Amino acid sequence: MNLESIKSPADLKQLSVGELTELCSNMRTALIEKISRHGGHFGPNLGMVEATVALHIVFNSPVDKFVFDVSHQSYIHKMLTGRMSAFVNSDRYDDVSGYTNPHESEHDFFNIGHTSTSISLASGLAKARDLNGGKENIIAVIGDGSLSGGEAFEGLDTAGTFKSNFIIVVNDNDMSIAENHGGIYDNLRLLRETNGKAECNLFRAFGLDYRFVNNGNDLESLIATFQEVKDIDHPIVVHIVTEKGRGYAPAVADKESHHWCGPFDMATDRQLYDSDAPSYASIMTSMLLKRMKEDKSLVVVNAGTPGVIGFNPKERAEAGDQFVDVGIAEEQAAAMVSGIARNGGHPVWGVGASFIQRAYDQISQDICINASPATIVTFYTGIRALNDVTHLGIYDIAMLSNIPGLVYLAPTCRAEFEAMLNWSIAQDKAPVAIRTASPAPVDLDITVDSDYSELNKFRVVSEGSDVAIIAVGTMLADALKAAELLKAKGINPTIINPRFVSGVDAELLTSLMANHRAVVTVEDGIIDGGFGAKVAHFYADKDIKVDVIGLPKQFYDRYNPQELCERYDITAEGIARRVQRL
Amino acid sequence: MNLESIKSPADLKQLSVGELTELCSNMRTALIEKISRHGGHFGPNLGMVEATVALHIVFNSPVDKFVFDVSHQSYIHKMLTGRMSAFVNSDRYDDVSGYTNPHESEHDFFNIGHTSTSISLASGLAKARDLNGGKENIIAVIGDGSLSGGEAFEGLDTAGTFKSNFIIVVNDNDMSIAENHGGIYDNLRLLRETNGKAECNLFRAFGLDYRFVNNGNDLESLIATFQEVKDIDHPIVVHIVTEKGRGYAPAVADKESHHWCGPFDMATDRQLYDSDAPSYASIMTSMLLKRMKEDKSLVVVNAGTPGVIGFNPKERAEAGDQFVDVGIAEEQAAAMVSGIARNGGHPVWGVGASFIQRAYDQISQDICINASPATIVTFYTGIRALNDVTHLGIYDIAMLSNIPGLVYLAPTCRAEFEAMLNWSIAQDKAPVAIRTASPAPVDLDITVDSDYSELNKFRVVSEGSDVAIIAVGTMLADALKAAELLKAKGINPTIINPRFVSGVDAELLTSLMANHRAVVTVEDGIIDGGFGAKVAHFYADKDIKVDVIGLPKQFYDRYNPQELCERYDITAEGIARRVQRL
Repeated sequence: MNLESIKSPADLKQLSVGELTELCSNMRTALIEKISRHGGHFGPNLGMVEATVALHIVFNSPVDKFVFDVSHQSYIHKMLTGRMSAFVNSDRYDDVSGYTNPHESEHDFFNIGHTSTSISLASGLAKARDLNGGKENIIAVIGDGSLSGGEAFEGLDTAGTFKSNFIIVVNDNDMSIAENHGGIYDNLRLLRETNGKAECNLFRAFGLDYRFVNNGNDLESLIATFQEVKDIDHPIVVHIVTEKGRGYAPAVADKESHHWCGPFDMATDRQLYDSDAPSYASIMTSMLLKRMKEDKSLVVVNAGTPGVIGFNPKERAEAGDQFVDVGIAEEQAAAMVSGIARNGGHPVWGVGASFIQRAYDQISQDICINASPATIVTFYTGIRALNDVTHLGIYDIAMLSNIPGLVYLAPTCRAEFEAMLNWSIAQDKAPVAIRTASPAPVDLDITVDSDYSELNKFRVVSEGSDVAIIAVGTMLADALKAAELLKAKGINPTIINPRFVSGVDAELLTSLMANHRAVVTVEDGIIDGGFGAKVAHFYADKDIKVDVIGLPKQFYDRYNPQELCERYDITAEGIARRVQRL
Repeated sequence: MNLESIKSPADLKQLSVGELTELCSNMRTALIEKISRHGGHFGPNLGMVEATVALHIVFNSPVDKFVFDVSHQSYIHKMLTGRMSAFVNSDRYDDVSGYTNPHESEHDFFNIGHTSTSISLASGLAKARDLNGGKENIIAVIGDGSLSGGEAFEGLDTAGTFKSNFIIVVNDNDMSIAENHGGIYDNLRLLRETNGKAECNLFRAFGLDYRFVNNGNDLESLIATFQEVKDIDHPIVVHIVTEKGRGYAPAVADKESHHWCGPFDMATDRQLYDSDAPSYASIMTSMLLKRMKEDKSLVVVNAGTPGVIGFNPKERAEAGDQFVDVGIAEEQAAAMVSGIARNGGHPVWGVGASFIQRAYDQISQDICINASPATIVTFYTGIRALNDVTHLGIYDIAMLSNIPGLVYLAPTCRAEFEAMLNWSIAQDKAPVAIRTASPAPVDLDITVDSDYSELNKFRVVSEGSDVAIIAVGTMLADALKAAELLKAKGINPTIINPRFVSGVDAELLTSLMANHRAVVTVEDGIIDGGFGAKVAHFYADKDIKVDVIGLPKQFYDRYNPQELCERYDITAEGIARRVQRL
């Protein structure tokens, strides 16, 4: 079958089961080839081939509306809805994003990249349909670890009150990114073991009707069940059991490392761009594993992304009870570390910068109002981390630096990261967050302190005059290079490592006024609500000019990091240019 | 029984059941009298008298540790743990806060005021206990609507994986603040109707063991059940059925209006300081109910606090299907309004400013990345709203104004609020939040526009020279008074209503430079991440001085609003003083 003959779901509806089976097989092959050359979410999509075809056979998209959770398992949906060429033609691989996107297709209703949102988003589509007298089916597709997030439970709870059509397809592959964690997974297992017949049923307990499909990779069972629930007049869960990674043996054998893949060699399954170079994740993991042996109350908490923070299966086994994965449930992670800290433990919560947003209230209320001395380490921060609009690391300073009571530290280099982490774990006064720079740790020839208890104390790295550059975290390296460029032009700027992004050093900033006319701040995040804005505010009624280098507040999608940095002067040359302008 | 003889839980342990029953009765009487004179959470505490006594009889606080959800039902716990005088001696009523507070007592482990956090916080206490080899009981007490929040479900899910002591007392009074909403409440009803015997059991589906107490206001059953689960070696839910408002007939008859009460007359049950004066909630409700009749796709969404936004039982009945209460579940509310907006509906989400924090990620990802034209109306904003540290309305600008794509409007008066709300509902371009001022709407003699589609366009209210005052929302009235004070001293400031707090009007700010030397901004929120900081940043490299009036970033607890405003010049006199200083 020629995959490119599938231009829309209508083209599926004439096919026999045999032809559909061949289509599934061909799509799987195309998917494996694309991911091997381009990278992307792998195992989740391989498991959903048949289910996605069955959904498009039975329902009438886009009149009937699908909402894919996280939408990292929407690749087959994209193939079937006019975007096949982006999967079979390597020149067009980048025509599509890794997530659903209304700008790409009328079959996509939301740009989604965070977990656990599909039921809630779809509940809104259903509510609007009912008010407007519509009759279409609304289908949320959730699973692959997404069920453990609070928003998903809230969505189930609301869906349980509905009196009209609402279909939730639960893709149960018995996995999250890594293995599942949570009491509900025992119930899913019970349901699998009883062919869906167990009386104790999580979904029924939420007020929902329920169907079970034992083989969620079998087209005919799926089609039959979806036909049964199509146009149903009440909310229902269709629980399908699928195999993550199906069709690519190494992805079935090692599901965690094939959840998302960079380009790899199909013959050996080896990642092409794998690196053994230390990352902040590996540095932190080594430090903590060592420290755990001496301090049994040290515990690392993570919400379903252990690989992001360097806790792969080997490290998790070594940490034992001193590592907790709560599943994709950041609110739980935040509150839990507060509780650990309040009962004599030393918790470290490692979290991706984009996901920390999911626990704003818990950081503010559960941790900071209680001044619980928990340590939070943020990963994938800054411009050079992830670049899909749903996964950006450029909003963390605006969020965390304005929550009272939270100390937010930005290490400039490896040694400073280690010092800050050691200090934070040992202290018992305040919640501390530490911003790891992306992508790779650098070594800098600067003095690193071991004690950060004097809050908001900046450090002068190099004394100069006229202009001072205050560079946050990873930007210090660029500021030092900018200083070299400027010295060649006869300008000798003072270089400052603020270390803290959650406040300013009033004493040092005041002292600068003696022999400086201007200050340039640099951060790799948005300006609004950020660090430079605090410096600008400090000097606002004083005789010193401030130029804040950073990103304008907006959403950026699939950008080229170097281009973005150059556009906004977030480079050594850019910093030097802005200094000269002043 | 002399209540003041109870100095600590140890004093309970010698008492007979008869004496304990008398104690309960006396505490209830004291509680009713205190609330009638002082105000506070009423129905929730009246229902929990026996359960709290039984907990303290069976467990050994503070070695065994209780975490009360929201902690609005912890008054009896306070009475029993050394704080009785704050409930029986009217001179000492204010010795205690309305929530648990570690500064008050070693029996309190967290300062809590938001919903659904107890299980997660307690899970951390339990984890630290296990790592440190402790043996104490950890008990989370949750209910009264708190179960519907995502954090509570995440907590149940994590608790379901525990292999050691963990006790969750679910106080099922069949109510939230108003009536319950959510599919789980059908399951709780089934459990009540089957005396806890139904096979389909929400808590067991989360992997938890389970006990049921049919009469949760019966001391002896409670004591017997708590004895049974004391020192248990695995996680368990004790589901107790209590009567909200028990012991005060009007609070039983009308549970919603007695959830929290201001001072009232015990003879008539009439609130002493009730007012029929319009509030922003009542203004919004009237407008929307009228508009709903013409626009069937207009729908108001709220997360468990309908009274806060003016939708009391009468208004809810009138709105019918066009009002949705999702239970206390702000993430669901945020995503749902996005879904409604994406399917042709016109959603308005009314939410308390302190609770909007619970949906930061959903506002950013589910609403703003998708540019869903939903309307959010924030209540209880500013300094003069709620003053417990857990319920402050001073962080909303720092949060909302730095999320890309969100338009945050601050109306200065009633007419402007109405105009902004009408515009927001009608437009289909962007998510819009509107900040209602606290406490009461004012009328101002200013020109009000009907169209706000030209984003970040400020309005000059009164032309002057030398100094401009940019006053956010409710502060405009104070700025106008300040202008009068200044005119008497020969200063004629320009007065500006920014209308937008999520961005600045570069054109207008630039034009001010022609004949102004300084700008003063005023907002009733924290400075860090706020509106004035954006203005300070705009002028940072220009020849104009900026003075930002607002609150330093910190937590404020049970402050006197007038004192706080005076301390930080957030008054007409303060503004005038700051202008003169420049």
